[in-house]
Amino acid sequence: MKVAIQGELGSFSDEAAQTFLPGCKVVPCAVSAEVFDKLDSAAAAAALIPIENSLAGSVAEHYDLLLVREVFIQREFRLRIRHNLMAARGARLADIKDVLSHPVALAQCRDFFRKHPRLRAVPFYDTAGSVKHIMEGKLRDAAAIAGKQAAHVYGASILVKGLEDDKQNFTRFFLVRKQKRALPRANKTSVAFSLRNVPGALFKALSVFSLRDINLTKIESRPLRGRPWEYVFYVDFLRGDDEPARNALHHLAEISDFVKVLGIYPAA
Amino acid sequence: MKVAIQGELGSFSDEAAQTFLPGCKVVPCAVSAEVFDKLDSAAAAAALIPIENSLAGSVAEHYDLLLVREVFIQREFRLRIRHNLMAARGARLADIKDVLSHPVALAQCRDFFRKHPRLRAVPFYDTAGSVKHIMEGKLRDAAAIAGKQAAHVYGASILVKGLEDDKQNFTRFFLVRKQKRALPRANKTSVAFSLRNVPGALFKALSVFSLRDINLTKIESRPLRGRPWEYVFYVDFLRGDDEPARNALHHLAEISDFVKVLGIYPAA
Repeated sequence: MKVAIQGELGSFSDEAAQTFLPGCKVVPCAVSAEVFDKLDSAAAAAALIPIENSLAGSVAEHYDLLLVREVFIQREFRLRIRHNLMAARGARLADIKDVLSHPVALAQCRDFFRKHPRLRAVPFYDTAGSVKHIMEGKLRDAAAIAGKQAAHVYGASILVKGLEDDKQNFTRFFLVRKQKRALPRANKTSVAFSLRNVPGALFKALSVFSLRDINLTKIESRPLRGRPWEYVFYVDFLRGDDEPARNALHHLAEISDFVKVLGIYPAA
Repeated sequence: MKVAIQGELGSFSDEAAQTFLPGCKVVPCAVSAEVFDKLDSAAAAAALIPIENSLAGSVAEHYDLLLVREVFIQREFRLRIRHNLMAARGARLADIKDVLSHPVALAQCRDFFRKHPRLRAVPFYDTAGSVKHIMEGKLRDAAAIAGKQAAHVYGASILVKGLEDDKQNFTRFFLVRKQKRALPRANKTSVAFSLRNVPGALFKALSVFSLRDINLTKIESRPLRGRPWEYVFYVDFLRGDDEPARNALHHLAEISDFVKVLGIYPAA
């Protein structure tokens, strides 16, 4: 199966694909919109996108794209994020001056930089991209922080493993396809909705779940494009396609400007 | 007054400081934690931090820092975000090959890149930093996208003004100080709270506002550190320090693990 991801080969999305969909063929895309284009053109059968990190929070752009594109979430996965320091083969930690990585990865390895004040953290646009950069440039005094898959892809050596400060570091991924099909044992639903801008609107919207004892696991708000300071809400709840869930969504539609079911899938 | 900001001189935070606090002395800091350190050490009297962009959404790190640092929001401001293409003096658009900027700024100028397919968008860690980079490197075939303040600070020429696709592009800033003091006419409150992980908890929490006809203008959720998939909620509501607000907060404290008032300030 061809699976589109955003980012370079060796990124955490690639690592997630190798972990949860062994044997799949990864199709790397420069930007997230392109990932969804690959589904439209059938150049990929599925897309694997990070939606939330347990420390850094939601991936806003992917919420926006799930809203506007005709796709359906079919599965969710949770990947443990492990950051590693890697460099060209033969390089030693004592040779390293600059450490390149994505700012979020650098921020998640503060203890490591505190222990090695000699090392300079250099922001780069991408974790795997920073490994590619030092390997292609044959840099001897620079290292990069990325997932182990990047070392494998670019032939780098791992100098230090498990650099992340907080081991409770997980990223939640969605497997997204064109088909609106819920897998057997699908027991979780993601929906997006927007509300009239009146007092108590969100309270009423949440009541449709609470009145039916439906448990919410996540709520997220995102700006509504073209209407500053109004929001789209994203809610995950623990029900599949059953009668209480259908009733709740029917009730939600009564009080919302729009409701979109983004996917129904087995909880990870 | 000395005002700490995150980012280089010439950033949108600098532009906001020049616009809303004319005559202040801006103290640039490399990372956001340092901005709050400047308040602790009294190296700055106030900090000006972006909290939310009407297109890109919330600045997650600043929500996290408002939660853990002993500070108080005293004012809010809204800055219209205008992106400009700038380059070394004498450079012409026809000479430019690469356009550097922060990925969020590049993503907000897609129409411009569509109209000029010859130009290559190059992600850089910071908008103002990208202007500094091309000016210090005396690059002739590269330009940068940033706010007009960056052209002023680094002596760059503006080649094209108003590159942003969507003119409804605003960033909301908080002015933060150490003193817990609400200004006269303060009519808006920001609070953070976390809830026991039980069904309907958020519904009950929002009821404390709804039952008192208090209008929420924003709700945000952020991961709770060390407890994956649990959240801290951030709510803004339209009341100052009056009886209904105090009653609502007292009620909220009954059902929350903790409640922190982040600030009480005049609505922008």
